[in-house]
Amino acid sequence: MKFRLVIHGGAGAIKKEKMTPEKEAAYRAALEAALRAGYGVLAKGGPALDAVIASIKVMEDSPLFNAGKGAVFSHDGKNELDASLMDGRTLAAGAVAEITTLKNPIVGAHLVMTKSKHVMLAGKGADDFAASQGAETVSPDYYRTEERWEELQKAKEKEEKEEKESNKHSSLQLEEKFGTVGAVALDQQGNLAAGTSTGGLTNKRFGRIGDSPIIGAGTYADNESCAVSATGQGEMFIRVVAAHEVSVLVKYRKLSVELAAQTVLDKVRAFGGSGGLIVLDHDGHFTTPFNTDGMYRGTIGPEGKPETAIYR
Amino acid sequence: MKFRLVIHGGAGAIKKEKMTPEKEAAYRAALEAALRAGYGVLAKGGPALDAVIASIKVMEDSPLFNAGKGAVFSHDGKNELDASLMDGRTLAAGAVAEITTLKNPIVGAHLVMTKSKHVMLAGKGADDFAASQGAETVSPDYYRTEERWEELQKAKEKEEKEEKESNKHSSLQLEEKFGTVGAVALDQQGNLAAGTSTGGLTNKRFGRIGDSPIIGAGTYADNESCAVSATGQGEMFIRVVAAHEVSVLVKYRKLSVELAAQTVLDKVRAFGGSGGLIVLDHDGHFTTPFNTDGMYRGTIGPEGKPETAIYR
Repeated sequence: MKFRLVIHGGAGAIKKEKMTPEKEAAYRAALEAALRAGYGVLAKGGPALDAVIASIKVMEDSPLFNAGKGAVFSHDGKNELDASLMDGRTLAAGAVAEITTLKNPIVGAHLVMTKSKHVMLAGKGADDFAASQGAETVSPDYYRTEERWEELQKAKEKEEKEEKESNKHSSLQLEEKFGTVGAVALDQQGNLAAGTSTGGLTNKRFGRIGDSPIIGAGTYADNESCAVSATGQGEMFIRVVAAHEVSVLVKYRKLSVELAAQTVLDKVRAFGGSGGLIVLDHDGHFTTPFNTDGMYRGTIGPEGKPETAIYR
Repeated sequence: MKFRLVIHGGAGAIKKEKMTPEKEAAYRAALEAALRAGYGVLAKGGPALDAVIASIKVMEDSPLFNAGKGAVFSHDGKNELDASLMDGRTLAAGAVAEITTLKNPIVGAHLVMTKSKHVMLAGKGADDFAASQGAETVSPDYYRTEERWEELQKAKEKEEKEEKESNKHSSLQLEEKFGTVGAVALDQQGNLAAGTSTGGLTNKRFGRIGDSPIIGAGTYADNESCAVSATGQGEMFIRVVAAHEVSVLVKYRKLSVELAAQTVLDKVRAFGGSGGLIVLDHDGHFTTPFNTDGMYRGTIGPEGKPETAIYR
């Protein structure tokens, strides 16, 4: 019996010296809950796709991560959420961008995959479609946490200062705390799946879309190679088509998942980008590299014991 | 002296028996004008990126193609335009989605690439950003042509009939006429660039985003391999990450551009998708395969003589 789930809760400047024991315990408990949710699906022979959705829903529902409840705020003080999902067996995929009323954007991505002929829906249309298909909706203030609101205020102050010194709009906060969540799973039938969900960048504006809802950039799964979810400075992950690049390095260059993921992360770094990747292949081998101080991450397999980690 | 420009004006059910000599002459003249615009840049040693923009602008300004003026209408009777652009030298990229007020969406994509830290902007934010950076704006009725308006009415009638027979919303019109435009160029310095621009699908709704504004799916350029622009049923091109897949087949499997493009198009076809690709490598080799009745296409090189084709 071989199955596995690997998750991340975002890479970034997670410094041990700034972490309290209480906060660390809360993160580990949330990661464990997400792992157990996916394990519940996989252990009874359920599909990788359902395990990915189940674990991401738990992280979306937790205020700790930048996805679902606890999402960061845009420049206009709104929460605009993105998610994507892919089935490695069929290459079926679904994605939603700029969601403002779904409790679980990953469910929206799943509905796009299964109930529409499309792959990607954005904005009000995406909210409306998912709601029409029965997705749970929330009022926009559901996502709000005071910590994220404070982050927006600080980001705006910083931006105001920066904009005085340059002509470029500075809405890509290089503040290194991301918190995108993702999951990759291998089920007992040997099928792979991947999913990613995020609130994007604090203080984002102009309808910025990052890598998370983009099939190929933030998410990719192919039974012939591996399943991938990315987190980090999305722009760099889009330019190198990060998730698909990992997949093809495994498929065409026969690299191990470790070497493939590290190669792509090094390429992202060469463009000045930081972040991390989780990658799982059809043999259950996995890797979770990151080039930041830390990445919330965890895994669970047939033994049913969740393992979590935060720092290097 | 080696340089080249290859363009497409969309693949689809372009049947010779339905084409009048006048209409064919108009399409050929528009393609030739687009080729000459890009040639003007390349012949004097200008960058591939500028040649791509120049030729796409001509096709956006022509009412004949489904991009800029002449874009198809969404379900709500609006024109919502997408475009993307990539520089093979730096892997810099820019994209806009659901544009409603820019005369030239490809210029919007260029401004995102050069004047923001982002890669992709969508909706009103994308319009606002491009306008703030000096892009020419138009009133939404600028894009309107009577032919496209009639297409929407017909599509809606067909949809109404179909929806009576099924529960799925049928907003992916399988009507095989696309008309997305794209260009790939190689300049005298050996740099590659690619761009794509579209009005999307007739009768699209729910904020559907296709492959054209997605880096990796509809557009990709990498000096180490080739430049690619796609046209067709975007959902299938997203799932196989078509443009990036062509690029990696050239880069990692050392396939010729012909074999790489045909391999990817066959994969798209295996998912039931139709369309075409234009691909150009750093030696100036190019290919323009399609699996539809026709694809508006053309090329020009140092000899300065535009060549155009429509059917097989």
